[in-house]
Amino acid sequence: MLTTIPKMIQKVASLWLMILCSTASFAQQATWIWYPGDFEIWLGNAMQNRRTERSSFLPPFWKLDSHYNLIDFHKDFNLSAPETVKIFVEGQYNVKIDGKAFEGYPTSITVPAGKHKVSLKVFCQDRVPAIFVQGKTIVSDASWLVTYEDKEWIDETGKASDQSGTTWLNAGTGNFNDPKMPPSKFKLATKEQFATKVSKQKQGLLLDFGKETFGFVQLKGVKGKGIISIFYGESSEEALDTARCETLDRLEVNQSVKKTRSPTLTKAFRYVYVVPSKGVSLDSVSMLYEYAPVKERGTFRCSDAQINQIYDIAKYTLHLNTREFFIDGIKRDRWIWSGDAYQSYLMNYYLFFDSPTVNRTLWALRGKDPVTSHINTIMDYTFYWFLGIYDYYQYTGDKAFIQQLYPRMQSLMDYCLARRNKNGLMEGLAGDWIFIDWAEGLSKKGEVSFEQLLLARGLETMTLCANLVGDQGNANRYQKLAAEVKTKLFDYYWNAEKHAFVHSRVAEKPTDNVTRYTNMFAIFFQYLDKSQQEGIKQHVLLNPAIQKITTPYMRFYELEALCALGEQSYVLKEMKDYWGGMLALGATSFWEEYNPSKKGTEHLAMYGRPYGKSLCHAWGASPIYLLGKYYLGVKPQTAGYATYSITPALGGLNWMEGTVPTPTSEVKMYCSTTKIQVTGTQDGVGTLSFKSTIAPSCAEGTIKDLGGQNYSLTVEKGKAYTISYKHD
Amino acid sequence: MLTTIPKMIQKVASLWLMILCSTASFAQQATWIWYPGDFEIWLGNAMQNRRTERSSFLPPFWKLDSHYNLIDFHKDFNLSAPETVKIFVEGQYNVKIDGKAFEGYPTSITVPAGKHKVSLKVFCQDRVPAIFVQGKTIVSDASWLVTYEDKEWIDETGKASDQSGTTWLNAGTGNFNDPKMPPSKFKLATKEQFATKVSKQKQGLLLDFGKETFGFVQLKGVKGKGIISIFYGESSEEALDTARCETLDRLEVNQSVKKTRSPTLTKAFRYVYVVPSKGVSLDSVSMLYEYAPVKERGTFRCSDAQINQIYDIAKYTLHLNTREFFIDGIKRDRWIWSGDAYQSYLMNYYLFFDSPTVNRTLWALRGKDPVTSHINTIMDYTFYWFLGIYDYYQYTGDKAFIQQLYPRMQSLMDYCLARRNKNGLMEGLAGDWIFIDWAEGLSKKGEVSFEQLLLARGLETMTLCANLVGDQGNANRYQKLAAEVKTKLFDYYWNAEKHAFVHSRVAEKPTDNVTRYTNMFAIFFQYLDKSQQEGIKQHVLLNPAIQKITTPYMRFYELEALCALGEQSYVLKEMKDYWGGMLALGATSFWEEYNPSKKGTEHLAMYGRPYGKSLCHAWGASPIYLLGKYYLGVKPQTAGYATYSITPALGGLNWMEGTVPTPTSEVKMYCSTTKIQVTGTQDGVGTLSFKSTIAPSCAEGTIKDLGGQNYSLTVEKGKAYTISYKHD
Repeated sequence: MLTTIPKMIQKVASLWLMILCSTASFAQQATWIWYPGDFEIWLGNAMQNRRTERSSFLPPFWKLDSHYNLIDFHKDFNLSAPETVKIFVEGQYNVKIDGKAFEGYPTSITVPAGKHKVSLKVFCQDRVPAIFVQGKTIVSDASWLVTYEDKEWIDETGKASDQSGTTWLNAGTGNFNDPKMPPSKFKLATKEQFATKVSKQKQGLLLDFGKETFGFVQLKGVKGKGIISIFYGESSEEALDTARCETLDRLEVNQSVKKTRSPTLTKAFRYVYVVPSKGVSLDSVSMLYEYAPVKERGTFRCSDAQINQIYDIAKYTLHLNTREFFIDGIKRDRWIWSGDAYQSYLMNYYLFFDSPTVNRTLWALRGKDPVTSHINTIMDYTFYWFLGIYDYYQYTGDKAFIQQLYPRMQSLMDYCLARRNKNGLMEGLAGDWIFIDWAEGLSKKGEVSFEQLLLARGLETMTLCANLVGDQGNANRYQKLAAEVKTKLFDYYWNAEKHAFVHSRVAEKPTDNVTRYTNMFAIFFQYLDKSQQEGIKQHVLLNPAIQKITTPYMRFYELEALCALGEQSYVLKEMKDYWGGMLALGATSFWEEYNPSKKGTEHLAMYGRPYGKSLCHAWGASPIYLLGKYYLGVKPQTAGYATYSITPALGGLNWMEGTVPTPTSEVKMYCSTTKIQVTGTQDGVGTLSFKSTIAPSCAEGTIKDLGGQNYSLTVEKGKAYTISYKHD
Repeated sequence: MLTTIPKMIQKVASLWLMILCSTASFAQQATWIWYPGDFEIWLGNAMQNRRTERSSFLPPFWKLDSHYNLIDFHKDFNLSAPETVKIFVEGQYNVKIDGKAFEGYPTSITVPAGKHKVSLKVFCQDRVPAIFVQGKTIVSDASWLVTYEDKEWIDETGKASDQSGTTWLNAGTGNFNDPKMPPSKFKLATKEQFATKVSKQKQGLLLDFGKETFGFVQLKGVKGKGIISIFYGESSEEALDTARCETLDRLEVNQSVKKTRSPTLTKAFRYVYVVPSKGVSLDSVSMLYEYAPVKERGTFRCSDAQINQIYDIAKYTLHLNTREFFIDGIKRDRWIWSGDAYQSYLMNYYLFFDSPTVNRTLWALRGKDPVTSHINTIMDYTFYWFLGIYDYYQYTGDKAFIQQLYPRMQSLMDYCLARRNKNGLMEGLAGDWIFIDWAEGLSKKGEVSFEQLLLARGLETMTLCANLVGDQGNANRYQKLAAEVKTKLFDYYWNAEKHAFVHSRVAEKPTDNVTRYTNMFAIFFQYLDKSQQEGIKQHVLLNPAIQKITTPYMRFYELEALCALGEQSYVLKEMKDYWGGMLALGATSFWEEYNPSKKGTEHLAMYGRPYGKSLCHAWGASPIYLLGKYYLGVKPQTAGYATYSITPALGGLNWMEGTVPTPTSEVKMYCSTTKIQVTGTQDGVGTLSFKSTIAPSCAEGTIKDLGGQNYSLTVEKGKAYTISYKHD
């Protein structure tokens, strides 16, 4: 019924709610607050130092930053009545009203009526300084201001400085609304799961949990003196190959009474081989499945059962890799890799639309100044970080986050610009990793065209964000720089004969080598005219002579480019072949790499190790994104879905239906060859575009005829439409 | 007897020792190692967050940095036999030989014979990543290399990166040679002390410990339920003024059996007023005196008993303020203030010659990049940091330290240079504190001459250090910049009529105001010709119309300037008046400020608070420096006392004797009006200079007659000389 309240009344009601909230008629919600980005960086350190390889600690090889350890929090209040305020703090702290400190470490204070500044200053080295303040109207939230350097000195007469040199930011927050659950105690959810099959092996028990999973193995009824070894496998081969499996745990046992024992670190596995030494016994084995309690808001179903299965496995793959952050894969690295995370952001917009996980990931990847290397040491990964912000704003419309992040965007772009060579191009310097993709013989020498393309897009992101935060001078500068790089991209790399960008320049001369990377990105970056697009499609994307891509990572972009060119039918076939190929091999989650020409256990090997490959890699889940954006065809046109487009494309399916989440609502879609049903999101106004070979009809709205069998319909907020039409 | 071994044999012996140490004939000394500067920054955070004001936590108002939390340590070894190595680590870690990791967290490994790289990688968020490795020849020490970013990625074939972008530094060390006492457990020494007088007061007991002291109050035989309040005072007035004393503790008591209770934080005091609430009783009170176990290597005695007393109290004052770091004062801030510390360094060279405390203090003050404010937010304090390095090198000759610090010297100087105004001068920007001195009405407006003078000296320090580390390009650049600033100093501020530098320029016009600061520094910086020096002496230093200095802080430099001009007699009188004035008022340590015109408890007040003044302030201890450098007259001429001068000046004393420490040895002196006895340091060759009205004689060396009653004598390493002469 609420959706039928006329707009005017809705507006008045929400205004009324705002007034209620700001006049203290009832207690407000307090939340833990901290310096923006700091909890994320701290948690990122914890997360990224959980990697082990055969039980050896394997930390990142790049610099990890720390939170600011000393933070001043304050807010000005105007109280109609005195108020008792409870205080919870992570760290050593003081509490002041109007600059006058309370004795000791108060857990409750009374703030008198009238105008008062409440401030806390907190030092904490091991965790992030954070506060939770709960009064009736005085509550800690994002409206509090924070700084790591308050510059509040006093002179010999006791006069305080004017603090004019202090920079205050709005506090960072998360979903920490319980005073007894401070940020440092953050843990993902768990639930117990059991093996589907247990088999006795030579030295112990092999457990099969039925599918790829993640968590803490639970050994029940453990007794005796000795060691229990736990060997993990994404495949049974791996779990049983005790000398070469990638991960293992060894628990020392010395107890006469039965106890449940569990390793302290989570692991990824489908199979677990539990081997007790002599003198040790145990009753049974289960696991605590650990997961991020994110909500699946996006859905997809269609007439093709294999595509449905691909979608489900992709969903599970993404969910497993959506944890404290978007990580690369759950077995091996479990790190935050910017290039990998970038794809997770995009998939996320079509499944969870969980912005906090995007925010956390972007903060953790960026770390602090000074910048001493590219993100994850990889040049391309620095640029993906910028691209992730571009998309984030487009999908969420969250300007506040851009404002907080902008200073660190600037210093990272400064770092990049300072590393251009004499031709103004990005070229690998000592310590720079040019990744692009895992592909045999891929050249990283000289000035690689792909890096220039990403730089251009990075500079476009800076232009967008500089405009958003009102930094007009830099907006112009970034725009000019972006244009220069794009000009060079065409001048230096475009080969008209080959109808393609070449891969690189070496010694200032373009090579003959054509690879797919730059070409496919240029399509969905919309850097090309129609004839260039067509050239690339025929001479690169659909050309079997150009080196094939064997990672789902770059398949993501390759198929996106083809979708952007309207090749949904071709892509559907590719999806069925490629992801279907993994399913045919028994995949219960999608892999880091899949090369159909490999056989048997060859599929498990990578990095020169027999089980080096990750069989649950976030970048394997891209069908979520492709199906949402290019088949259901829903995407924002302006920030936060204020306006958006719906361009369904069946690509050979008989029908499809699904939900695409938006910031606070969703778009619902059904599409067959004769009927389209769509319900608009509450977040904005959509434009449905479709082709029809008959004159379409709709009872709920007016269809515009655009000519050439093209039609469109305006989709109002929250409104449902049914269109009769005809198209394959 | 050892000192009589002929030099050649000594050399052979030490060579032999070196060979022994490097060929593993016996186990070598291992020490805890870390990333250079990181333990110091971490410990500085702990230290500077111990300040309280009436039991409220009072942390610094500038940014505190953290250690790098993820460090790679390695060293290459060539073993003649396999070796078992014990491993101790602060943090999560792995251990590798030639890149191959051991399982888990090994505490002992065996390294095979031959060439091998031993490496450890450590993550630690709350403490500083540190390792202690002890084998027969494989030991952790400063020869190990460390980095916070190893950039050791692998490609899909398992090949490792070349790590060409990784910067390795030599590890930082301290005096941590016990595997069970890692850096994080560092604590100063303590010993129990007792009150000299206990008196019953209205609410409790007042204890007088007889002199200024520092530590943990010990309440013995505490029993009951309630609160014991402890009020501290540097004066009895303060301790008894429970509503206004600067520091206090409240201990909650709830115990039926007698126990010793103690506050968790140290405090400074002479008097302690212990007030138990109803229902609480205690038997007695003592204290644990906490102190840095530094050795007093410098000595001074003379014919004037008051000067001897001043020296002793100065010594005690400096010792109390020499703690984990050189702090400002023990009661109130207990912080590391760069300007204060700078004076402690100089005093230290004449008392403890404790280089590690200088190093720790310089690291902690500097923190990490990016620089976001001046050191302690004070512009002058940034420059004193550079000056401290200049002196450190001169006194110690420790080039390794300069090499470690040089990158952070550069970035701090970059920060300063970027903040010059359009005239190329330092002028306060938002958030910059221009301190100079506590002095009534002292102007900080516009371009203050004192700051330009310090900038010039800072740039000279950069020139020196750039040359030391072989950075010739920057050495030239810094030299040019220093010369430019010095030219401006004279062009803009020198007023020939006033025979002085004026205080400042406002709106690009020199003011008429003459203060002592720039003028006195210019003298001992040797920026002036004879006539300018004489002008300043008469028209500024000895001119009572120029605003007087009331802090021992600036008295330090004022008296140093006069000593540098040969005014030891005048300075001796001033010393007796000023420091003797504090003694006459019962001082048992020297104060933050002393204004002879004040009366009674006025001496206790500062910062608008009745007991705001610190009565034990490091900068009060300058007689140690003046007496060592300008009366005993010993100072290095080239780095580390390789050459040095001895220019005794009795300044009216009948005799004086003392010891001046040098890096590994000392200079011993006795001087009366007729006899000079000197024993040279083992560290270098000295030149004794003196005046005599008779022809002097010396049996142990040849005196050079320089004309005009001036004589000199070369003082060989470790050799003793007795000179007969005559001079007042």
